[in-house]
Amino acid sequence: MRPPCGVVTLTTDFGIEDSYVGTMKGVGLRIFPEIRIVDITHHVAPTDVLEASLVLESSYPYFPVGAVHVAVVDPGVGTNRRPILVVAQDHYFVGPDNGTFTRILESGTVEAVFVIENPSLMLADISNTFHGRDVFAPAAAYVARGVAPSEFGRQVSDAVRVALPEPKIYANQLAGEVVYIDSFGNVITNISKKQFDENVGRRAVRIRLNGKVVDQVHRSYLEGPQGRLLALFGSSNLLELAVAGGRADRRIGAGKGDTVFVDVLDGEERPAGGFDY
Amino acid sequence: MRPPCGVVTLTTDFGIEDSYVGTMKGVGLRIFPEIRIVDITHHVAPTDVLEASLVLESSYPYFPVGAVHVAVVDPGVGTNRRPILVVAQDHYFVGPDNGTFTRILESGTVEAVFVIENPSLMLADISNTFHGRDVFAPAAAYVARGVAPSEFGRQVSDAVRVALPEPKIYANQLAGEVVYIDSFGNVITNISKKQFDENVGRRAVRIRLNGKVVDQVHRSYLEGPQGRLLALFGSSNLLELAVAGGRADRRIGAGKGDTVFVDVLDGEERPAGGFDY
Amino acid sequence: MRPPCGVVTLTTDFGIEDSYVGTMKGVGLRIFPEIRIVDITHHVAPTDVLEASLVLESSYPYFPVGAVHVAVVDPGVGTNRRPILVVAQDHYFVGPDNGTFTRILESGTVEAVFVIENPSLMLADISNTFHGRDVFAPAAAYVARGVAPSEFGRQVSDAVRVALPEPKIYANQLAGEVVYIDSFGNVITNISKKQFDENVGRRAVRIRLNGKVVDQVHRSYLEGPQGRLLALFGSSNLLELAVAGGRADRRIGAGKGDTVFVDVLDGEERPAGGFDY
Repeated sequence: MRPPCGVVTLTTDFGIEDSYVGTMKGVGLRIFPEIRIVDITHHVAPTDVLEASLVLESSYPYFPVGAVHVAVVDPGVGTNRRPILVVAQDHYFVGPDNGTFTRILESGTVEAVFVIENPSLMLADISNTFHGRDVFAPAAAYVARGVAPSEFGRQVSDAVRVALPEPKIYANQLAGEVVYIDSFGNVITNISKKQFDENVGRRAVRIRLNGKVVDQVHRSYLEGPQGRLLALFGSSNLLELAVAGGRADRRIGAGKGDTVFVDVLDGEERPAGGFDY
Repeated sequence: MRPPCGVVTLTTDFGIEDSYVGTMKGVGLRIFPEIRIVDITHHVAPTDVLEASLVLESSYPYFPVGAVHVAVVDPGVGTNRRPILVVAQDHYFVGPDNGTFTRILESGTVEAVFVIENPSLMLADISNTFHGRDVFAPAAAYVARGVAPSEFGRQVSDAVRVALPEPKIYANQLAGEVVYIDSFGNVITNISKKQFDENVGRRAVRIRLNGKVVDQVHRSYLEGPQGRLLALFGSSNLLELAVAGGRADRRIGAGKGDTVFVDVLDGEERPAGGFDY
Repeated sequence: MRPPCGVVTLTTDFGIEDSYVGTMKGVGLRIFPEIRIVDITHHVAPTDVLEASLVLESSYPYFPVGAVHVAVVDPGVGTNRRPILVVAQDHYFVGPDNGTFTRILESGTVEAVFVIENPSLMLADISNTFHGRDVFAPAAAYVARGVAPSEFGRQVSDAVRVALPEPKIYANQLAGEVVYIDSFGNVITNISKKQFDENVGRRAVRIRLNGKVVDQVHRSYLEGPQGRLLALFGSSNLLELAVAGGRADRRIGAGKGDTVFVDVLDGEERPAGGFDY
């Protein structure tokens, strides 16, 4: 386990219109003046624990080892769901025990999970509605300051996991689903480049989503004429549908949960070098 | 008075689409490279000085003592309204003298108010449209760097206060109003937990807003089934109406300024321990 | 050339809903833990290189000398457009070579432009879709850490410039255009105060845009009654149309690219002291 590096990230569904996020940062600065806080996003779809899990998975590896990642998508605030601290991959994760950390927990690299229950490492008054301020921001700041994870509470092995959608892999087809639509309108699926490489290889494909078809894998957003529907592997190495200079979500009428098919076409071969892209 | 700690917060109605906020931060960094700037919010309702006052009141106490709080909701920029620096509660407040700091001024803890008029503590060129950049960001950075408040200008005792809505308290009723609706759709009133405790105590209540009725005080956002209308004391200890898993503002059709009634019901008693929540 | 000061600014069209911006900051912190990152804006109109150029021009001079300014409005990501580093005015500029830096390049103060092509100063894996993370954030962090610009790649003299709209100046008329509408609805033109002073001076004017007329130059947003249409020089010293307490864009029905006329009226004189304002 690497020591904390003083960097704390925030991922929430709070939006930025209210003062909630700023207040959490104030709490962090009071506890550890040297803290450096970075917003990952405050626009996780409200109460969407699965989306928070995907956002965290794609961004945390780019942060310094020893960073503390706070994720507060917390519909159960004020009930008996536990606050937890997960130590894994030389990073620390703080938030409600509601499945937000599923990807981390399933990565096989978790060193330990602790319940956050030591009242001396929280604010003195704990509201029933805003544990981001009262519990999670303090915990993150104390971790960043160097408090040992075991100081926060007892170790547990039953942290909550949610079912993450995995693509189904058949002999001549991958059937995945849309898991995220970014603000450019790019439609991101759960089919990874690794899964594609292993199961499709150099064979020709037809990619289908809501009746729209793309029959090759492109390299960049600018391939072909403006307005062309493209399929490519995006920055998280997930298969995505995009439109050159436009929005794929509107073109396709796509939403989260829609099924995407990758049909493998026998008897055809994609260009040498592996892929079209 | 505590010395400044190097932390500066920003509360404005500028939004974040333009470069205005970033430019203010640049000005601060030029004057004091060690400054640490935190956004509280840039989405105060345009020109709503009262809302800015409430936002500040609920968030500044969570920041380190010695923090400088810049609040720029400034419809009078370019007119003769004064820029001021308020020293109170071990915090510093910088902004236009237009009522933004009413809550602080009425708290009984103000040490001194200074007009910001020393040209050597502003930018060399002062526009008529952007004092956030030209006057307030420099002033905050100089305070954060340790310049004494009295260096900014003459002390005054007539800082502007606006009328803040206070609930009316009757023998068997509290009549308050909606003062804020947060981005989750929670409808926040000006009835504090203290006022409720002192005037209602353990007696049963009926809470009414725009024809909707709640007859108990809940503990958390998740009490009861999804979609239930709830009343609870939120993170600022103000009575708020919420919907489990939904938006109370839409359910109730509530807007700022709407009247909320807490009727005290004689002959009934709420659960021992004080409240339902 | 001043040494870097550790400050990095970000200007993009990424929005803030996704984790893209946060991930770029993580990359920067890994490379240079002392980095201080400031958002200028992430709401440049999508793929609008010209707007990015104007945003940069109006904000970067307020930052400390030695700052590194990253601008990623990058419709050509993944194609053969070059990543560049521009050294000018004691500032550093990092981004795609697509015209974003036109104003800097035309300012006559550029010391040198380098192509960013040294793979040891990028991430190990370069995606085809997110050079903000893989190329530009690393480059900025290395510059901020003190790596010499010449380490990044060969020097070039053919950096891309786009045509920026310049007002046409006639004997009795200036014909400019709307170049930006800010989030307050202020309609900002490309007619500078300098151009106005040199070509109009103290003569009376009539300012016209989409059939709406203003016949004087005002000093501030609060002149005259609420709802009045105003013309004034804003915080970037560009002529803008505004409405006291309202939105000029809606009143005028104005959009980017609309033509604005300043007619000089013979035989009339504006107040002594130069202008009405």
